[in-house]
Amino acid sequence: MKRPTMQDIAHRAGVTKAAVSFALNGRPGVSETTRGRILAIAEELGWQPSSAARALSDGRAGAFGMVIDRPAHTLGLEPFFMQLISGIQAELATDTTPLLLTMAEDQAAEIALYRSWWARRAVDGVFLVDLQVADARVPVLEELGMPTVVIGAPVGTGRLPAVWSDDAAAVTTAVIHLADLGHRRLARVSGPNRLRHTSVRTAAFERATAELGLGGRTLEADYSGEGGAAATRELLDRERPPTAIIYDNDVMALSGVTAAQNLGLRVPTDVSMVAWDDSALCELVNPPLTALRRDIGGYGARAARRLRAAASGERPGDLQDTAPSLTLRGSTAPPPPGS
Amino acid sequence: MKRPTMQDIAHRAGVTKAAVSFALNGRPGVSETTRGRILAIAEELGWQPSSAARALSDGRAGAFGMVIDRPAHTLGLEPFFMQLISGIQAELATDTTPLLLTMAEDQAAEIALYRSWWARRAVDGVFLVDLQVADARVPVLEELGMPTVVIGAPVGTGRLPAVWSDDAAAVTTAVIHLADLGHRRLARVSGPNRLRHTSVRTAAFERATAELGLGGRTLEADYSGEGGAAATRELLDRERPPTAIIYDNDVMALSGVTAAQNLGLRVPTDVSMVAWDDSALCELVNPPLTALRRDIGGYGARAARRLRAAASGERPGDLQDTAPSLTLRGSTAPPPPGS
Repeated sequence: MKRPTMQDIAHRAGVTKAAVSFALNGRPGVSETTRGRILAIAEELGWQPSSAARALSDGRAGAFGMVIDRPAHTLGLEPFFMQLISGIQAELATDTTPLLLTMAEDQAAEIALYRSWWARRAVDGVFLVDLQVADARVPVLEELGMPTVVIGAPVGTGRLPAVWSDDAAAVTTAVIHLADLGHRRLARVSGPNRLRHTSVRTAAFERATAELGLGGRTLEADYSGEGGAAATRELLDRERPPTAIIYDNDVMALSGVTAAQNLGLRVPTDVSMVAWDDSALCELVNPPLTALRRDIGGYGARAARRLRAAASGERPGDLQDTAPSLTLRGSTAPPPPGS
Repeated sequence: MKRPTMQDIAHRAGVTKAAVSFALNGRPGVSETTRGRILAIAEELGWQPSSAARALSDGRAGAFGMVIDRPAHTLGLEPFFMQLISGIQAELATDTTPLLLTMAEDQAAEIALYRSWWARRAVDGVFLVDLQVADARVPVLEELGMPTVVIGAPVGTGRLPAVWSDDAAAVTTAVIHLADLGHRRLARVSGPNRLRHTSVRTAAFERATAELGLGGRTLEADYSGEGGAAATRELLDRERPPTAIIYDNDVMALSGVTAAQNLGLRVPTDVSMVAWDDSALCELVNPPLTALRRDIGGYGARAARRLRAAASGERPGDLQDTAPSLTLRGSTAPPPPGS
């Protein structure tokens, strides 16, 4: 079944193609009776203007884009991204706007893609994720004037609107919880230092532990299970190991529990653990993980509404979501006596 | 920075817009010298034909699509889909073809989307996933003539080419492994029965256990951690519980281990467990999970190459991938004595 054309409609209606064009575009030049007949036939044939013709006439692509430049193998197990994308999709589905999703090797490739997408008007705007400490994408997107919503803190994001939650408040909440339980030596296994939210969390962790007079050391990892396990082994192998560890995502926390158990330690009796991002993973394991919970799907939906507004010519400001809250489960307890 | 137009190039080159159009479209009407000058200016200004204009001229959208109609909350934790999408992206990235990804409420909504995408030529083809026992999408896609590659077994898929792996062989491998260890009472926690590959696996599980004279019962679940845990509790709560359980995905296997441990059972001493799809999850837990492994990323990449071929007018046939193989880890062992 070929896509019906104006010619098909003209043939069926016994009028010229020009008459069909006038009728479908609501322009004068055909009688109301003819217009009605043409519209009925167009509907019957399932005629729709092509994306291309529509984009030429109203300049809209009818799609938004997202580029991810994390390695594919870590993405395959990063509940955060699937939940974020699900939330974005749930909102975009309300007017059947699709999301153009692609992966890039690095920021240079990502920037080339933005330039090409915008030059060809393949998208009406983009979601910018994984903001880096010095992010080369921000000035390019500002210069292009492509509608953009940053998913992350509004620091170094120039005029681009951001949807974010307070990572510093979240890490402080976790530190206070562990201090209240009596822990004196904390550690944190972080995501990559080049990511801006890692640096925000690291600074807040250092500040909170210093203010409470606690030991607090951050070890950099890469969000992967292997990375989380290696960092955990390195921390627990020390002469005076931490009695509690905060992880920057749930996958690393999960692998941290397993790594500790494989060293003969019990969680939480010997060492407490806190996960960041409370996906279903945290409830699936033994013990279930105490975790910093945020509504990632809702976060994605709110970002999608902002991007739609930006693409409609509005200038949305930054939107601060509620800070992640701590969900207490079985992986945190007082430290072992005498530790 | 506005997107450069032919008018901008004409202005800079001091020629008419028509001359620019002739030059850029390789048509006669301008001298070779002028053409060379115009092309140099176009390149300098970063001119590119708009997607819309290109789609009108060559009829290509330059994108492929995928619609997923699983509930967003189960998708957030389904490593299979992220790995599949990563593999597809890795292949499509070789010519920077993006993937239009969206979620639909149900098959009716999904079908409406295909009709609309194809009528508007928003995509050049689609990947069809989660094939159902009686799948309403297949006849519609055949009728539309939209290039499609089925990711799943070529059963009930009509003329649509399929990329698949042999689920029946895989489940038989797992059954034989457990029988070799001495297990006599097996069980399986499956995905939804409406999915075609669930029915393929269930039939093969029943056949293999019957041939080996083993008990073999399948309990339907929904791929979620909660569903996997509930099914596991129901199975282990029986008078003569199974001594080994095969799960249709890794998330349910993970939650099954935890559910057994919460009932005071040891894995694998009291009950053995096998996961389907060997994501990094399987190695993160205690004990690490014996799992049916397949190269999901490679599977996605091969499907993407087929779809590209189909969109180029070729008629690719079905492609059978290697069957999943069993990776032995710590979650399978002989049954308890006297069981």
